[in-house]
Amino acid sequence: MLHTNLSINEKGNLSFAGVDTAELANEYKTPLYVLDEERIREKCRAYINSMKKYFGESAQALYASKALSFKEIYRIVKDEGMSVDVVSGGEIYTAKEAGFPMERVYFHGNNKTDDEIEFAMDCGVGYFMADCREELLAISRIAGEKGITQKIIMRLTPGIDTHTYEAVRTGQVDSKFGTAIETGQAIKMIEFALSLPNISLDGFHCHVGSQVFDGETFCQSAEIMIDFIALVKKELGYEAKTLNLGGGFGVRYIESDPHLDIEKTIEEISVYVKNKCASAGVTMPRILMEPGRSIVADAGLTLYSVGSVKTITGYKSYVAIDGGMGDNPRYALYGSLYSALIANKADKEASFKCTIAGKCCESGDLIAEDIMLQECEKGDILAVLTTGAYNFSMASNYNRIPRLPIVILKDGKSRIGVKRETYEDIVRNDM
Amino acid sequence: MLHTNLSINEKGNLSFAGVDTAELANEYKTPLYVLDEERIREKCRAYINSMKKYFGESAQALYASKALSFKEIYRIVKDEGMSVDVVSGGEIYTAKEAGFPMERVYFHGNNKTDDEIEFAMDCGVGYFMADCREELLAISRIAGEKGITQKIIMRLTPGIDTHTYEAVRTGQVDSKFGTAIETGQAIKMIEFALSLPNISLDGFHCHVGSQVFDGETFCQSAEIMIDFIALVKKELGYEAKTLNLGGGFGVRYIESDPHLDIEKTIEEISVYVKNKCASAGVTMPRILMEPGRSIVADAGLTLYSVGSVKTITGYKSYVAIDGGMGDNPRYALYGSLYSALIANKADKEASFKCTIAGKCCESGDLIAEDIMLQECEKGDILAVLTTGAYNFSMASNYNRIPRLPIVILKDGKSRIGVKRETYEDIVRNDM
Repeated sequence: MLHTNLSINEKGNLSFAGVDTAELANEYKTPLYVLDEERIREKCRAYINSMKKYFGESAQALYASKALSFKEIYRIVKDEGMSVDVVSGGEIYTAKEAGFPMERVYFHGNNKTDDEIEFAMDCGVGYFMADCREELLAISRIAGEKGITQKIIMRLTPGIDTHTYEAVRTGQVDSKFGTAIETGQAIKMIEFALSLPNISLDGFHCHVGSQVFDGETFCQSAEIMIDFIALVKKELGYEAKTLNLGGGFGVRYIESDPHLDIEKTIEEISVYVKNKCASAGVTMPRILMEPGRSIVADAGLTLYSVGSVKTITGYKSYVAIDGGMGDNPRYALYGSLYSALIANKADKEASFKCTIAGKCCESGDLIAEDIMLQECEKGDILAVLTTGAYNFSMASNYNRIPRLPIVILKDGKSRIGVKRETYEDIVRNDM
Repeated sequence: MLHTNLSINEKGNLSFAGVDTAELANEYKTPLYVLDEERIREKCRAYINSMKKYFGESAQALYASKALSFKEIYRIVKDEGMSVDVVSGGEIYTAKEAGFPMERVYFHGNNKTDDEIEFAMDCGVGYFMADCREELLAISRIAGEKGITQKIIMRLTPGIDTHTYEAVRTGQVDSKFGTAIETGQAIKMIEFALSLPNISLDGFHCHVGSQVFDGETFCQSAEIMIDFIALVKKELGYEAKTLNLGGGFGVRYIESDPHLDIEKTIEEISVYVKNKCASAGVTMPRILMEPGRSIVADAGLTLYSVGSVKTITGYKSYVAIDGGMGDNPRYALYGSLYSALIANKADKEASFKCTIAGKCCESGDLIAEDIMLQECEKGDILAVLTTGAYNFSMASNYNRIPRLPIVILKDGKSRIGVKRETYEDIVRNDM
């Protein structure tokens, strides 16, 4: 099957992390997000161990928590020794409430508000990934008001085109994030950062995009970044202590997506980085990487109930489910492809070509078009796979539909990670 | 300016419904949705009065509340005598909590769950807009269990292509909604509906899509629907009492969008419908229409603070704001165009070509690309116009950013319609 945590059990039902998904749907009702905790932990260990093995003990793996942010996930990744990347005051608040150590928090974002900067400092966030001139000024000023020195890492754009979908490319020169190296603006920004009080520049950050399946792309950006470290050392006499190579490790959503070997890829990058540092004459910096999607994506799936099966004579068939773009807007946003199957008929042949339609009152509310499913009818359970990343985190109350709960599986047992939203929750702030 | 409720005041600031938007931003903080109550009321009256004038006293205008659903909006449209179209249990709950009369509620949706059907009947919802065979069976069964007869209107697809963006076309034959007339499936569905106990079929519904600027499209679908009424009368001996022509009246988002005269368009449709009913030999049915977007869109705008202005040498300039796809995902979803200006510099020339970037950690989080704004800097207030529809209703907590409050303007005064979300709200259901 698509991932090793999926199988078909003796009842012919889809089993996930060793638990019967049809029984989960019955117990917790649908629609429902399900998470495989052990898979998340395995992925954390793969990153941490590979990074320490190939980059040395100072290397750190940061979980990019925008992929999936709720209290329990911070407890799990903390337990595994990860640091985290957060992108808002809300993510900082969640991590803090979960007891995550704030010194291991790296605060990202292209437009942190002054209120967020202040809140982050009050929480004791370890590092700010600083984006631009206005932000440097605000961090310096607010740190000064608080009488602290804030560690920062400067976000730069190496100008790499990852040939992936436009909305998730972030390393090219034309980007809302960071400062471009190619235009000569980055070195001026570093000079400016070094001139400001109450800021301690720790190093540089880059991120080339999402769904990258090769080490080569990371090596390309590392080359540009290490050349830049050398340039800054020569021109400004400052040598970066930290190089954050970002995230973007690819995830298998459909059978034709490649497998990515985390350890081998990190080894490949490490060989390149060490050689490049040596040839560029710079001290090998502490290396950070920021996996998000690849930590949680295949640790998740979503269970829905089929409400109707509609065949339009001469056109196509629609399978309508009790969720949709409200809990998974990625097909509507990016045309993202997913794999799906009928969980309670998983042993049957997938011979029914259909389009999976959500229940939102909008034609574009689809989860997949022209996909092959098992023959199904009202009451069957549909499992959409690999929904651990950017589903719960992007969920809305569009059509005032309550957001889904998250059920976490561990050692064959299930527990609630996030409770199902109620109608009362939805109107809570309405006057 | 784009809408008549916008002007520039003596301070050079953008005035909305007679209120200084820069002062609103200062008082309520940004990001902030602002609604012009009188504009909503005017639009309700335009529909109600035109429909009664041209279609007779039985005609009804239904506010399609998925465009913007929160308690106070139901109170406002109730006060104006509108009925409402809801699409979920959550919208029914909100309307009920606001005291909206349930007999004037029409329950839409392509996949109502059994729980929603039961809840809607318990609330006393007037009409179900029934979508498909499974739903007819569920409505009939649950109504039987409750010992009631439920009025329904059957949703049909007339097969009109409105030549608008694919995701918002709903009347074509290939649709997740309703049953197709062209394929011969609709008449069988009506025969089936008439055979079921505890259901009272009131008539038929169609909806051709969104952003329709001409009466012609409505006349085309009316032609097909009235021919179908005649066919059903002839074949099954049943004559529809109600014909719901749906919504989709176009809204001006940018200067080049046309103006749509509500009264003239309804008059045009009414002339066509009356003639067509006469020639087809059917009694003129009660006519319903379902404006949503056109009731609220230009009654809303969103105020943001500028956080940074970044010019990438040789490429382009980005203006970063303190909101984005979390509060307005329509550019990310559909590439929808918006008009915007710097609210506190509204009297200055819009000479600065830039891209408006949101604060979500995603390259695709943009509000507009290559738009002309006034020269601006951190601290300025950006107003994005015509955000009354499908902004609040589609908002998410992506990046765990709190959702925006709604401030309602009336007679030069402001009040809160929906409170700003807090970090506590965001983690409320996290274990």
